[in-house]
Amino acid sequence: MYDEEGTEYIDCINNVAHVGHCHPLVVQAAHEQNQVLNTNSRYLHDNIVDYAQRLSETLPEKLCVFYFLNSGSEANDLALRLARQYTGHWDVVVLDHAYHGHLSSLIDISPYKFRDLDGQKEWVHVAPLPDTYRGPYREDHPNPAVAYASEVKRVVSSAQEKGRKIAAFFAESLPSVGGQIVPPAGYFPEVAEHVRRAGGVFVADEIQVGFGRVGRHFWAFQLQGEDFVPDIVTMGKSIGNGHPVACVATTQAVARAFEATGFGGSPVSCAVGLAVLDVLEKEQLQAHAASVGSFLMELLGQQKAKHPILGDIRGVGLFIGVDLIKDEATRMPATEEADYVVSRLKENHILLSTDGPGKNVLKFKPPMCFTLDNARLVVAKLDAILTGSHRLHQKVENPTGEDRCSKVLQTHATLGQCPHWGWRLRGILTGADNSVQQDVFPPS
Amino acid sequence: MYDEEGTEYIDCINNVAHVGHCHPLVVQAAHEQNQVLNTNSRYLHDNIVDYAQRLSETLPEKLCVFYFLNSGSEANDLALRLARQYTGHWDVVVLDHAYHGHLSSLIDISPYKFRDLDGQKEWVHVAPLPDTYRGPYREDHPNPAVAYASEVKRVVSSAQEKGRKIAAFFAESLPSVGGQIVPPAGYFPEVAEHVRRAGGVFVADEIQVGFGRVGRHFWAFQLQGEDFVPDIVTMGKSIGNGHPVACVATTQAVARAFEATGFGGSPVSCAVGLAVLDVLEKEQLQAHAASVGSFLMELLGQQKAKHPILGDIRGVGLFIGVDLIKDEATRMPATEEADYVVSRLKENHILLSTDGPGKNVLKFKPPMCFTLDNARLVVAKLDAILTGSHRLHQKVENPTGEDRCSKVLQTHATLGQCPHWGWRLRGILTGADNSVQQDVFPPS
Repeated sequence: MYDEEGTEYIDCINNVAHVGHCHPLVVQAAHEQNQVLNTNSRYLHDNIVDYAQRLSETLPEKLCVFYFLNSGSEANDLALRLARQYTGHWDVVVLDHAYHGHLSSLIDISPYKFRDLDGQKEWVHVAPLPDTYRGPYREDHPNPAVAYASEVKRVVSSAQEKGRKIAAFFAESLPSVGGQIVPPAGYFPEVAEHVRRAGGVFVADEIQVGFGRVGRHFWAFQLQGEDFVPDIVTMGKSIGNGHPVACVATTQAVARAFEATGFGGSPVSCAVGLAVLDVLEKEQLQAHAASVGSFLMELLGQQKAKHPILGDIRGVGLFIGVDLIKDEATRMPATEEADYVVSRLKENHILLSTDGPGKNVLKFKPPMCFTLDNARLVVAKLDAILTGSHRLHQKVENPTGEDRCSKVLQTHATLGQCPHWGWRLRGILTGADNSVQQDVFPPS
Repeated sequence: MYDEEGTEYIDCINNVAHVGHCHPLVVQAAHEQNQVLNTNSRYLHDNIVDYAQRLSETLPEKLCVFYFLNSGSEANDLALRLARQYTGHWDVVVLDHAYHGHLSSLIDISPYKFRDLDGQKEWVHVAPLPDTYRGPYREDHPNPAVAYASEVKRVVSSAQEKGRKIAAFFAESLPSVGGQIVPPAGYFPEVAEHVRRAGGVFVADEIQVGFGRVGRHFWAFQLQGEDFVPDIVTMGKSIGNGHPVACVATTQAVARAFEATGFGGSPVSCAVGLAVLDVLEKEQLQAHAASVGSFLMELLGQQKAKHPILGDIRGVGLFIGVDLIKDEATRMPATEEADYVVSRLKENHILLSTDGPGKNVLKFKPPMCFTLDNARLVVAKLDAILTGSHRLHQKVENPTGEDRCSKVLQTHATLGQCPHWGWRLRGILTGADNSVQQDVFPPS
């Protein structure tokens, strides 16, 4: 990416620009179709059929009915309607901290959102995030997949005891807003069994993570087991490389229960979608994501040995999370530190962002054309920033004189070396020479 | 429009292709921006600001905050969230037969949809359509605007008596699915007063009807009185000429109650939106819609004298409805006849469709470049079809022998002249020579 002055940035976060910002073949496909016909999908058009056909080739055979829409949010809303219509039930089980979109119906099923807004509806049930780093069942648990799935079973049973009926379990195949989580393999099939037994369907939200990003597979749900097939898969963002197009794939059984027309999708949207698939194949970006992702994981792993703030490096393909912690014993999220690292990286012309409930997980989900050199440069910059900031301190707002400084002194002994301790601290002290640098401001 | 064999069709219905299918300036604007940057609206970009600025110039000054989205449905969903957040209330008053979109939350406020699906929610209240042709207060009523607004007042009061609190009144500024209805002038201001007194806001849905279509004004709500200002205006479809872009405009007061980011809109969507506005201005399409619309209304009015099936010709600018009736006394919707006319027009390479609860209203909402010649041709074809079909008969399904034929004979005396009366009738008998043509099939 380039800013308005032409400065070049390395983009580590924009998964929407899936095959690369402004990929010429995708731009050309849009332009060609835009010149000929751009109308809604109530008219028959080959592009719509061709695109559905091509998508079906990437999915298990059972997922053979496609609805096109304009955004991932619209896709998840339709998934909800499909699930309810098919099952005759109303309730939804979601993972904690999940985010499924910005529509009314999706805020309701997004703990990440509804906790700040209208609160939890009686028809929404929240299961714990299958987080093996910070959740109740961790890397030392003999079978975290089964343990976390049992939590879903418990949530389902408890809902049923209240007379509620489960229409669907919704989950991102790799929970991103939850903190770049990789659920233990086998978790989804177990969950699906519990949910289907309760009469519900399994919805895999692949909007952020599908389309080859995980490298080993085309879809992230396939990490959960070769035979695992969700009842509904939603896709968006990446599939249009920035053009607003999204899709719901489902089974004939689910689709039969639903009669509706007039969705989004258009000859142009489908032309763009087809071009994105062409580029993915031609440039072998799925295999590329696997190799660059492994390399990046390896480089980050080497950094972990040097910087204790790097608590966990997890991910698959070009979906990677770097979990920053205060210390290994508590694994307390290093929130301010993560924020600081992101802003220092931006000064170094690298775009990265944070996620997770503690906003402490650096998330990598770059365009799929991200290179080995990009990976080397980003990790080198990250190393330099962490090396220059040995003493990461807590943010102190509105300090007023000596008293506060003593308090800071108590909790952060090394601050005693700071010659500016009457000053207000913004963010984190930096500098290998123990001096205070740009993050300390004079008292206001 | 052209079909796959290159046959030319006159498009009388595609209001999405607002400034004309594939308008070269709009296509070019999309292409230029697509080559440079197409990312989400979390990054600052001049196009987004410029577009909001240009839209604000078309609206009353109070409507000065803009949110961009990908579809009219997303816009209406956001309007609902804004209304609820601002008022602290939950309930919505809508017009009967209204359609506001295909999302869960919008099906709930669309009687056109929810009657077939999940039914009416307790927080939705339906007021009668202000239809002066077929509703309770007609053209002979001294003040239908006040009478229909009192119906809204009654609905609001009755909700309040049940302890419900009104967040918003939602209406299309010209109800389209309701049957191309033109509410009597002064109705909206009266309604707004009742709704605001109950603590709610007024939402004008301009997705199908705004952007110069009504000719006299840029926005259809402006037909309701120069001073009338809704609290929220939603736009979509036409504003992108087929590209998925939509918008919510609201007041600072409403926006202040709401904190949210991460909506749709992008440098490309806004470039397209700007190009559509440029074309509208440069080609003076609003004035064009006014003159072509008047001409078309006049031609249709002349037909009304010839064909008693034409019950009402109503509309403004290039938003016109032709209400087909069985007879003037009952004004019973001529549903099958309308369906027949539409399919005959299609055979004549003219695309038209029907709307309204009786599916008997021929709706004109063509691209704004629709010409005087297009109007002449369409009306001439309509005249020919109606002239060749004097005896419009009711659809008879699964007839079985003589008995049924006698019944048909009874209700449709002229059928006695038909030499094929043992046959199954599909649709309508045609032919000025009293013979039965393509709509009669042999018994199956």
